[in-house]
Amino acid sequence: MIPVVSIVGRSNRGKTTFIEKLIPELTQRGYRLATIKHDVHGFEIDHPGKDSYRHKAAGATISLISSPARLALVSDSDHDLTIDELRQRFIGGVDLILTEGYKRESFPKIEVFRPQGPDDLPLCSLDDQVVAIVTDTPVSLPLPQFPLDDAAVVADFIAARFLKPQSNPTIRLTVGGRNVPLNHFLSRFLRATLISMIGNLKWCDQLESEEIVITVSPKL
Amino acid sequence: MIPVVSIVGRSNRGKTTFIEKLIPELTQRGYRLATIKHDVHGFEIDHPGKDSYRHKAAGATISLISSPARLALVSDSDHDLTIDELRQRFIGGVDLILTEGYKRESFPKIEVFRPQGPDDLPLCSLDDQVVAIVTDTPVSLPLPQFPLDDAAVVADFIAARFLKPQSNPTIRLTVGGRNVPLNHFLSRFLRATLISMIGNLKWCDQLESEEIVITVSPKL
Repeated sequence: MIPVVSIVGRSNRGKTTFIEKLIPELTQRGYRLATIKHDVHGFEIDHPGKDSYRHKAAGATISLISSPARLALVSDSDHDLTIDELRQRFIGGVDLILTEGYKRESFPKIEVFRPQGPDDLPLCSLDDQVVAIVTDTPVSLPLPQFPLDDAAVVADFIAARFLKPQSNPTIRLTVGGRNVPLNHFLSRFLRATLISMIGNLKWCDQLESEEIVITVSPKL
Repeated sequence: MIPVVSIVGRSNRGKTTFIEKLIPELTQRGYRLATIKHDVHGFEIDHPGKDSYRHKAAGATISLISSPARLALVSDSDHDLTIDELRQRFIGGVDLILTEGYKRESFPKIEVFRPQGPDDLPLCSLDDQVVAIVTDTPVSLPLPQFPLDDAAVVADFIAARFLKPQSNPTIRLTVGGRNVPLNHFLSRFLRATLISMIGNLKWCDQLESEEIVITVSPKL
């Protein structure tokens, strides 16, 4: 699964500006990134491409425009999708997902903290998933702290902590969109059984090095 | 798999206008739609949301903005993605995908044909995947023909031909993003084996009525 690091902090503390500096530091180190911005209020949209805008306006749930170099998609949601739902449905081919916001989700967080007064405390004093603070004002908390103007050291921290090469094979099972927890034995058992079941099928000669997705549809 | 119908035709024959009429006819019949517009020349984009635009400009491969009611995504592509790649990676929760363009792909096509002179022939005289013509000028070809101003009959045609309820359980297997063809025996064998393997796990009590996704990551 693609690792997630959330950049969190109170409003107007410079999260977007910091992410703008962090992204090129990570891409220069060879990592491909996806970003997710959480907009709790809804957003206005200047829709990509005149024709796909017309499709959406006419009632399509999802409207996508695709060209050889890029694509854009707009979709209705029936709820505020979680990071995991967004990751599973829309994101592939990257090494890391950086989110702006999502402070209530259970992913590792880096807090951007610029106090605006003596009573302004960092979020991380209440959230043990904050793994580091980026700040212009050192705080007395037992967490790594980095200066706001040095995205390079934060990129190194993220790379060292979250972007180590994965050495164990993994398997993920979802039922009706929910992740089903699998222990070590079950993971290995399911993986080995699947690989032996499908290993002789056409196109299945590289099972060990490629992602396998099996989707079982509901019985109607 | 979500069925695909492509609306094709030469340039400036009214494809977008026809799709705009067709979409509400289908949604009124209870179907949820995704649309894909093929833009071979590339498109200019007014990016959704100021912050996610900044993420993309800073070098993110994928930038997504998500709110409780809708989401928007922009992604770089390293090639002109096929309909099947777009369907697998980005589209779910709909009954039908309508595309505008993609006349070279192997999906059923409906041609919008408005001749602009006596030598202007429909594409479908060269393409046996065209299943109907929508036209203001009847042509002598052995295909269903519908008037350009009557999207309702085309919606009925699509619903009858492509949107019949699926009565068999299905299973889909992809390896490294490629679909692996499974015959009837293998589909049933894999499905039954998986369901018996995971049927006693926590949260797996509704296996027959919910989609199950198993993802096996590469061994690194």
